[in-house]
Parts: sequence; C-alpha cells; structure tokens
Amino acid sequence: MTELKAYTHYVEDELRKLNFPDVPLDLYEPLRYFLALGGKRIRPTLTLLGAELFETNKEEVISQALAIEIFHNFTLVHDDIMDDAPLRRNQTSVHEKWNENVGILTGDIMLIKAFQLLSEVDNERLPLVLELFNKTAIEVCEGQQHDMDFEMRNDVSIHEYIEMIRLKTSVLLGCALKMGAIIAGASEKDQNAIYAFGQHVGIAFQIQDDILDLYADPEKFGKQVGGDVIANKKTILHLTAISKATKEQMEFSKQLQNENNIELKVSRTKELFDHLGVKEDCKERMQMHYTQAKQALAKIDVPDDRKKHLLELASFLMDRDL
Amino acid sequence: MTELKAYTHYVEDELRKLNFPDVPLDLYEPLRYFLALGGKRIRPTLTLLGAELFETNKEEVISQALAIEIFHNFTLVHDDIMDDAPLRRNQTSVHEKWNENVGILTGDIMLIKAFQLLSEVDNERLPLVLELFNKTAIEVCEGQQHDMDFEMRNDVSIHEYIEMIRLKTSVLLGCALKMGAIIAGASEKDQNAIYAFGQHVGIAFQIQDDILDLYADPEKFGKQVGGDVIANKKTILHLTAISKATKEQMEFSKQLQNENNIELKVSRTKELFDHLGVKEDCKERMQMHYTQAKQALAKIDVPDDRKKHLLELASFLMDRDL
Repeated sequence: MTELKAYTHYVEDELRKLNFPDVPLDLYEPLRYFLALGGKRIRPTLTLLGAELFETNKEEVISQALAIEIFHNFTLVHDDIMDDAPLRRNQTSVHEKWNENVGILTGDIMLIKAFQLLSEVDNERLPLVLELFNKTAIEVCEGQQHDMDFEMRNDVSIHEYIEMIRLKTSVLLGCALKMGAIIAGASEKDQNAIYAFGQHVGIAFQIQDDILDLYADPEKFGKQVGGDVIANKKTILHLTAISKATKEQMEFSKQLQNENNIELKVSRTKELFDHLGVKEDCKERMQMHYTQAKQALAKIDVPDDRKKHLLELASFLMDRDL
Repeated sequence: MTELKAYTHYVEDELRKLNFPDVPLDLYEPLRYFLALGGKRIRPTLTLLGAELFETNKEEVISQALAIEIFHNFTLVHDDIMDDAPLRRNQTSVHEKWNENVGILTGDIMLIKAFQLLSEVDNERLPLVLELFNKTAIEVCEGQQHDMDFEMRNDVSIHEYIEMIRLKTSVLLGCALKMGAIIAGASEKDQNAIYAFGQHVGIAFQIQDDILDLYADPEKFGKQVGGDVIANKKTILHLTAISKATKEQMEFSKQLQNENNIELKVSRTKELFDHLGVKEDCKERMQMHYTQAKQALAKIDVPDDRKKHLLELASFLMDRDL
C-alpha cells in the first residue's frame, strides 16, 4: 500500500487546494468541514489509477478525480440527513452540526461543484465524460431510493439487493476508473473492462461489509458487531437466510427481530445463520464477484505489471478478516 | 401574449415527452408530479427567445430550455423543504405529499437530469454552455443561503438585498437567455447584453413582487395582501423604510413586528411606509432596473422587430397593477 498512499496524499493535497469562497459562510464552511473529514479517497485514487493504466499522468485527470470524490461526499451529506445519522467518520454530520437546511444546500452545492470540476477536461473528451457521469449519478440516486424502499418491504430478493448495492455504491467505482480510462484515450473495450472491474470489486466489497457486520473480530472491528442484526437491516446475510429457511426457521427469525435482549438477538441470529450456512454462501457470492473483477482486469490490453496498483488496491479493499 | 403562448405550449409538450423510468416509483413519481404542476415556464421560454433573436430555431435549444426549467424546479423542491412550505402552485409540495427524504432525492435527481439535458448540445458549444450553467447554479445556491441568513440578521442593507435576489432568482433568467444566444452563435457582446437584459428584468420583477405583496388590489391578488408584513419578512419595502426611518419610527416599526392583531399590523405598517414614501422609492428602483434591461436589449445588434417577443415577455412580467 505504500505506493498507493502517494496517490491518496496527492488527492488530499489537491482537495485542500480547491478554492471555495468565504461567503455565504453557512454554505462554504460546511462544505470545507465535510471535505476535510477525510476518508480513504478510494474513488479519486481509482480515477488516477485508471488513467495511469493507459499511460496518462495523474495530473491530467485530477479535476475529474476530485469531481468524483466531491460527488461521493454530496451523496454522504444527503444520505446522512435521510438516515438521520448524527455521525460521519466519527465526527458530527453536517445537518447535526448546522441544521437540515444547511445540509441540503451544502449537498446541492457539492453536486454542482462536482460538475464544474468534471468540465475541466479537453473539449474532445467532455461529452463522453459527462455522459458517463450523468448516467452514474442517476444510478446512484436510484440505488439510494431502492435502499430506502427496501426498508419498507419484506419481499426483497437477493437479486434485487445486489442490484441495489450495484447502483448505490458500485457503479461509482466503475465510473471513477472508466473516467480515467476515457481521458487517457483507452479503447471502448478496455473502458468497459475497467468499469466491470470496478463494479465487481464494489459489489464484492459491499457483500464483505455485510458479512463483517456479524462475523468480524470484535477486537479489530471499529463498531458494534451485529449492528445490522440489531437494527433488523435486510443485509445479504438476512436475505440469504430467508431464502434458505424452513417455515419454522422463518417464524423464528421473525420472532428474533422483536427480541429486546440485544446480546441474545445477535447470538441466536448468528446460530440460525450458521445452521443455514449463510456465511459460506455469502462468501462464495463475494468471491465470485471478486473473481469476475480480476477476470475483467485480465482482459485489458496492457502489460501485467501496469495492473499492479489496481490489483493491490482491490486486495486492500477485500483483505479484511472474514 | 398570444404568440408567446405558443412557446409555452411547446415547452409543456416537450416537457411531457421526457421519458422517465417507472422505478424506483418514489423517485420518478414525485418528479413527474412536480413537473406537471405547471407554472409560467418563463425560463425555458427565455431560452427559446434568446435563440430566436439570433435566428436559431427553438428546436435547436429545447433540451437546454428544459434543463433550465428542471433546474428551476429542483430549486423549488428543495426550497419548499427548507421553508417548510406545504403548498406549491396551490398543490401539495413534494415533501408534504411524500416525505422529506423523497423531497431531497427528487430534487437531487432533477439537478442531475438538468445537467443531462444540458449536455445534449453540439460538442463545440458544450464547454461554454456548461460554464455558464455551473456558474449560475452556484450563484442560485449562494442566493438561497443569503436569503436564509438574512432572516437571522437585522442589519441587511438594500444593496445586500438586491444582490441576494440577483443571485437567487435573476441570474437564472440571464442564464436562460444567454444559453439560447450561445447556442445560436451570438457574439460575446450580444451574449452579455441579453444576459444583462434578463438579469435586470429579474430584479425589477422581484422588487415588483415585494411591492405587490402590500399594495396589490386584493380583488386581483391571488393571496393575502400583506403576507410579508405579517411574517415580518425583510422585503425591499421593509429595508427601504428602515433606511429612511427616524429613531422613533424605527421603534414603532419594531413594535409593529410584535403586533398580534394582523389587520392592525398591516394597516399601521402601510401607514408608516406611505408616510416614508417607501412605495415610490421602490417603484423608482424597479423602474431603474426595467430601464436598464431595455437599454441592454437595445444594444443588441439585430433588427428591432426581432426583439418584439422579448419586450412583450418583459412587459407581461412587469405589467401587474401597482
């Protein structure tokens, strides 16, 4: 990861260099605050790597990399309002620190800023860059709406769930990579392959996230193990369990959702999942997407050593103890 | 206005033709609902007129005209949440009919859709079109934040207020016109002149709006006369009064803000304003911007009869009984 860190630092530096006006204070202060909260800066790094894979310097795509990071932050600011989340990266979320109106408007200006940065590209590439970004941005919103809808539904299929996480989070990874590839002048075939790589890594990562929630080592896990179970979230674990459960097990699972003893709720749910082999199924599904990601990358027509960083980043993302 | 109506109908037709997906239902249903609420469609009409002024057919700029209308609707949906407004065009606002989360996301998708439609332009014009739109969109957000900030402040100057309404509403009129002019290949000088025309008409219209709130004929006015006074809004009338008031009148004005008898509050405020000559001052200011608008239009290098529709639209906007 040492070499990859250089990319992240470059993104951080360039993000800091962005010049936002001082007034209106309640518009630009929250924006600065939120962008400074940090994060892994995975998406902009992907854009830099996507360009470098096709021999284009990171400096050539930094504006679009920042655009994607700011777009991502826009979704976080608005999602935090929608989820009523008081914290983001262990700091107060924008709507909590200021108020909801500030949160809405800060997100709005971020979205516009993203488009502004995106537009800083050769006229020749601009139409393709915009087309990809517009499509992705719409998909991300659709994914967020599906996610909210699913909370109200009891008949969500695994297929629908995968499609939801694909839209909500994975297409943006694909977009980030393809953006770099487009600007670097990669062939359409290679553009699509790198997009597929990002998308499958994204899906695998999200499945892993769901698994970790219940199966992470409590010592290493930053948050409460079983948080999704406690909140009755319809994760891939839950949906897999439901798809395999007998009528009685289904009934038992429903009862567990109303269990007030949190420890009991988590341990009994885990027992049920273990009995049904849920973890293994989900790991297999995750592995399948990870394999598809690597297959897509393998198809790209550049020497293998140039793919090193991308494989490293993918394995960094996937390498959490399961 | 008969000829102008043809433009509005064209906009309505094309707006209806936009194809939005069916799912997620809670994302696209509110979008369709809101876009169907109507409105005068002034902004897209301005884009069509801006293009026709420079001999370009409305069909050439309809996507950008719709982009501006949808952007405008995005601001309305989010503003309604921020102002907690239950009604829009006498119908239930989106966050009231659904909920706040739906309102936030519907606005977001509208903003992205606006960019998508905007991008449907010749590659050659795309950079300028985007640059103008990005700048305008940021200004509109800044204006909205100033507006919210002003509600908390007691030292807003008339100059600041004019700047706020310029940002919040007038730049979009300028942008709508200039957008048409850019695509029609107008000279930079003419582009700027038509922008100035739109901006000054916008400011004049907003000042007129403030005046009408208190001085409209109750028979013709669609809403309660004096609504701004009752809500203690810092309109141009209020700010003008404050700028001319003696210490005693200032004190009296403050007392009136706490008056619970609404009729008394409105009539006494009006008496004070009349005594200070507030209406005349504001009308003069309004007239000044209207004159500046017409002067800007006069400078544009096309035969006068081609400016007919724009002048008609401006006079339609300004021709409410004062």
